[in-house]
Amino acid sequence: MIGVAVLGAGRMGRIHAENVAASARARLVAVADPVSPAAETLAGRLGADASTDAQAVIRRADVDAVVICTPSDTHVPLILAAARAGKAVLCEKPLDNDLARVDASILELEPLKTPVMMAFNRRFDPTNARIRTAIDAGEIGDVRQVILTSRDPGLPPRDYLAHSGGIFRDMVIHDFDTARFLIGEEPVEVFAFAGRLVDPELVAALDDYDTVGALLRTGSGRQCVITCCREAVYGYDQRVEVFGSRGMLQNDNVRSTTLRRSDAGTTDAREPLLPFFLERYAEAYRNEMDAFLAALESGAPMPTSPVDGRRALRLADAAAESVQTGRSVAI
Amino acid sequence: MIGVAVLGAGRMGRIHAENVAASARARLVAVADPVSPAAETLAGRLGADASTDAQAVIRRADVDAVVICTPSDTHVPLILAAARAGKAVLCEKPLDNDLARVDASILELEPLKTPVMMAFNRRFDPTNARIRTAIDAGEIGDVRQVILTSRDPGLPPRDYLAHSGGIFRDMVIHDFDTARFLIGEEPVEVFAFAGRLVDPELVAALDDYDTVGALLRTGSGRQCVITCCREAVYGYDQRVEVFGSRGMLQNDNVRSTTLRRSDAGTTDAREPLLPFFLERYAEAYRNEMDAFLAALESGAPMPTSPVDGRRALRLADAAAESVQTGRSVAI
Amino acid sequence: MIGVAVLGAGRMGRIHAENVAASARARLVAVADPVSPAAETLAGRLGADASTDAQAVIRRADVDAVVICTPSDTHVPLILAAARAGKAVLCEKPLDNDLARVDASILELEPLKTPVMMAFNRRFDPTNARIRTAIDAGEIGDVRQVILTSRDPGLPPRDYLAHSGGIFRDMVIHDFDTARFLIGEEPVEVFAFAGRLVDPELVAALDDYDTVGALLRTGSGRQCVITCCREAVYGYDQRVEVFGSRGMLQNDNVRSTTLRRSDAGTTDAREPLLPFFLERYAEAYRNEMDAFLAALESGAPMPTSPVDGRRALRLADAAAESVQTGRSVAI
Amino acid sequence: MIGVAVLGAGRMGRIHAENVAASARARLVAVADPVSPAAETLAGRLGADASTDAQAVIRRADVDAVVICTPSDTHVPLILAAARAGKAVLCEKPLDNDLARVDASILELEPLKTPVMMAFNRRFDPTNARIRTAIDAGEIGDVRQVILTSRDPGLPPRDYLAHSGGIFRDMVIHDFDTARFLIGEEPVEVFAFAGRLVDPELVAALDDYDTVGALLRTGSGRQCVITCCREAVYGYDQRVEVFGSRGMLQNDNVRSTTLRRSDAGTTDAREPLLPFFLERYAEAYRNEMDAFLAALESGAPMPTSPVDGRRALRLADAAAESVQTGRSVAI
Repeated sequence: MIGVAVLGAGRMGRIHAENVAASARARLVAVADPVSPAAETLAGRLGADASTDAQAVIRRADVDAVVICTPSDTHVPLILAAARAGKAVLCEKPLDNDLARVDASILELEPLKTPVMMAFNRRFDPTNARIRTAIDAGEIGDVRQVILTSRDPGLPPRDYLAHSGGIFRDMVIHDFDTARFLIGEEPVEVFAFAGRLVDPELVAALDDYDTVGALLRTGSGRQCVITCCREAVYGYDQRVEVFGSRGMLQNDNVRSTTLRRSDAGTTDAREPLLPFFLERYAEAYRNEMDAFLAALESGAPMPTSPVDGRRALRLADAAAESVQTGRSVAI
Repeated sequence: MIGVAVLGAGRMGRIHAENVAASARARLVAVADPVSPAAETLAGRLGADASTDAQAVIRRADVDAVVICTPSDTHVPLILAAARAGKAVLCEKPLDNDLARVDASILELEPLKTPVMMAFNRRFDPTNARIRTAIDAGEIGDVRQVILTSRDPGLPPRDYLAHSGGIFRDMVIHDFDTARFLIGEEPVEVFAFAGRLVDPELVAALDDYDTVGALLRTGSGRQCVITCCREAVYGYDQRVEVFGSRGMLQNDNVRSTTLRRSDAGTTDAREPLLPFFLERYAEAYRNEMDAFLAALESGAPMPTSPVDGRRALRLADAAAESVQTGRSVAI
Repeated sequence: MIGVAVLGAGRMGRIHAENVAASARARLVAVADPVSPAAETLAGRLGADASTDAQAVIRRADVDAVVICTPSDTHVPLILAAARAGKAVLCEKPLDNDLARVDASILELEPLKTPVMMAFNRRFDPTNARIRTAIDAGEIGDVRQVILTSRDPGLPPRDYLAHSGGIFRDMVIHDFDTARFLIGEEPVEVFAFAGRLVDPELVAALDDYDTVGALLRTGSGRQCVITCCREAVYGYDQRVEVFGSRGMLQNDNVRSTTLRRSDAGTTDAREPLLPFFLERYAEAYRNEMDAFLAALESGAPMPTSPVDGRRALRLADAAAESVQTGRSVAI
Repeated sequence: MIGVAVLGAGRMGRIHAENVAASARARLVAVADPVSPAAETLAGRLGADASTDAQAVIRRADVDAVVICTPSDTHVPLILAAARAGKAVLCEKPLDNDLARVDASILELEPLKTPVMMAFNRRFDPTNARIRTAIDAGEIGDVRQVILTSRDPGLPPRDYLAHSGGIFRDMVIHDFDTARFLIGEEPVEVFAFAGRLVDPELVAALDDYDTVGALLRTGSGRQCVITCCREAVYGYDQRVEVFGSRGMLQNDNVRSTTLRRSDAGTTDAREPLLPFFLERYAEAYRNEMDAFLAALESGAPMPTSPVDGRRALRLADAAAESVQTGRSVAI
């Protein structure tokens, strides 16, 4: 059994802590959060120790791996601390919102040889994983185009937005990683348009955007198209399409029931989409944790790495730059 | 070019006349209807002669075939007249609502060797025809169960109902023919329940029903289930399912667009179904006419015969008897 | 926390034991099974005591409720033992396969005032439950017809079939309960056809059938149609349709992914259905256990009762009788 | 009845001639084609005169309107000839592949006050038209993003490609028009990536591309994303999605049947898509012709104009330029 500590008892911390607790591969040893009651509630419920001192938790002898779900600007120091202590790491994105700091931390991590996995949950969605397997098996031939649709159910609060790093680093970054995961070749060029259509005043005040269209190109000419919006009245819209020389694979949205409804005005209407990522990717989070623990158990390479985080961030930065300059940006 | 006369200028007469007029295999020679303006309007619009005398039209030398769309009780005399005059016949169902008269007319028709086709339109629906072809090709192995859903958009007027012969002979008869068409074996036993749920007072006054569930069994034990209702608020519901040892084929409902709509309360909602049979089976009526004319041209056997009409009627009678007796009826 | 013992460590015992162990409302105290290693493995994994003596487990002071997942012929004695010991019961169907014994046990249970719930899992499927709620809210007006499709992925082994009580008591009984749950009125008449199409030799040798069509009628004339088959190559087919005066609700099949696939021969193809009931109704089993525990906590009436078990069995017996006699059977 | 001549007896000429012949608003007077047998076959079949002299046909007194389906480089001279002769025009796209010539011809047409409609068929697809109506009715609030997918079934022959004007002017131009039709605001900026993935050698030799991703932006920040490919093994893929502040509307693909198929490996598989534009847009072509004739009858403005053709071409040129420069192009 792998001893796991979860750092950060917020939304993602709760998810990961529950998945660790439910896993047959691991034991939840401790939960750390500077807000003592948050740590205690979560730890208490799952039979783990609570602490307000992440560094102390990292050093515990019975902790083999840490899951980092703290605010973004603490990710690098915590990863490095864990790595230096010889602990494996599963870290929520981003490594950092600053590319230079990311590069520096990757350099520093390298010689420490610690397994570090970046939590790109969408790769572990069962349908996305199935698509990747099908592509690898040649089921749709050579990939030509990837079309990603990502719309959040509603604009986050002003305070969240102000510290988010902007829509590209906060939201579209997931799609950039999914693009890399599915297109099967590194993007070499990025272009994006960004609009202020949901709450123009608010996002303009933050020098941010709420609605984005982005285009990626790989060296061989494959294309990926991404559309994102911070608000969709019909729920959390998460779709994937991969078009290849021999077929097409699509990941539809998920609902909580399989109900269809027909009445005087409409037929075969389906239920609203799952509300947001916690529900939509619940199975992906379980699979992600399992993949992390299974790799630790077997000593296999981690399914994702800080370099993946770095590359997604680089695409996000490039897209943001493209919006400023009206030019595509080479990667 | 086959010279065709259409007898009866009502709803079905108009459909058939238009399909004859548009066919490259035929010429619409005349339209007959006792109501002179009805005949004239239809004939005039399609460049044919109008007449109030069906018998005279049948006798015309330039008429090779007649399409009978007159009231049910005139079908037998008109078919016999046409047959005696050596003219081919496409006749709307039923041959007659009385099984004895049907049997007598079949006996009388036999020696006349006239091609007579019964207009069971649903066999010519492109999807139903595709299902039949797939079954013949062994694509779903041995048929085990056929599930038919037939719901009209609304209760017909009292006057129509009073002369309809009852829901089994008027409405469910189409499903009995579809069952025979798809199940690939003659039904040998029938059972039905019938209810009064749409307009209990009206249908009770007419000694009729408006909602029906029927079960058929073939000699080898295959089953067909039919559910019918005279009213469905979401439109004309026409679905077919054939379940076999190696797979299942389903014929979904048809809409006028391919629109899907998502909003705050619902996702992927589709448009209402096509209103009623004229729209839903427009393509089936064209294919039906073409199959009739093609068989005439080539001398091939008609795709359906009076015996098919007889068998569907027998099933309808048996179902009605079953409702009275609470016993299944052997065919 | 409610102390729960699970009697029987087979497939269903495992499911229920896991759901008890994961519930915040209960504690899994013990698992009993005459096969000692079966009890020990399951109990050990979930941190409960193992026993080969069900009666001793029932008597334990820390056991407030028992879940009965033992062979059918032990259900009545175990329920009665639990009831006499003042323990609540969740019992897998059937109470017993013999109606007289069922009636006797219900009479015996009555004065003991023990909460006894029959485990009709399909009522707790999220979509079926949603349909029931929608009907209660008047969303589709008055129910007219219920159409149930139940096809197992494959014929069970001969040994299972030989002790199953026949397809009506073993398999169709679930649909009879679902019919009662959704149609909103007690069925008063039943008719069925049964065939031997999957493995004619085997099922004939057992005086059983493998393919069934059944029709129910309520007092007001509502109808329910059920089609069942012991084998479907495309997987465990579980569909529900409720048609009412103001609309229609349908419960589609469930897949493990939301993948759609298009290639040279086909478009929008979806993945196979979930393999069988353990997977298909995983969420229903969780909801069922929660409903049982929540009713115990609050003292509310159980959502289902032995009388529900009795009524479903009565319908199964009537359907089997109808197959023998060719007559509908009044309930 | 409006007298109509069709110029050009190729694929599009045949479609339009048939729709004129079937229309109650018009009479097909003549078909002109320099290849005499082509004109004669088509005209003969539809009861019209045949000619090899388009100019003579334009001048006929019984010709009120001409439909131009000739090679692209003859469009401008024929439109101008018709306009000078006071005849209305329905012209296949493009007006011309050269923007300067288009501008000159629009200037020349202006004072002639002839009704000229550009044949952008997709606007008349029933579902696209329904989407436009729904947007106008405010059903999805403010449009934010339009996602267009256009994939041809297969690469056209080399000879066609060589004279096509390139993928942007030949193929993507339809999507640019659809974008303008649906987004409800003029695009002000365009960017595109283009690849050679279907037949790299052939399209490189022609200095063309076969796979395209394009992004448009309107003044208020709305976005349109277009993905095109010259080949899709699963058929002619034509999808539209419009996402707005209050909902989303999608136009799915069209099949020739409503069949669903389930077997051992797959469930709910649908039939292949309609083969190509002649089949996919058959109803759109009928509606387009009817809109043209109805506008002529009523004197209402044409639903599309040469300026629409000009704007779509401008977007195509801009997209092509963007591929060369790696910069977005302002319109």
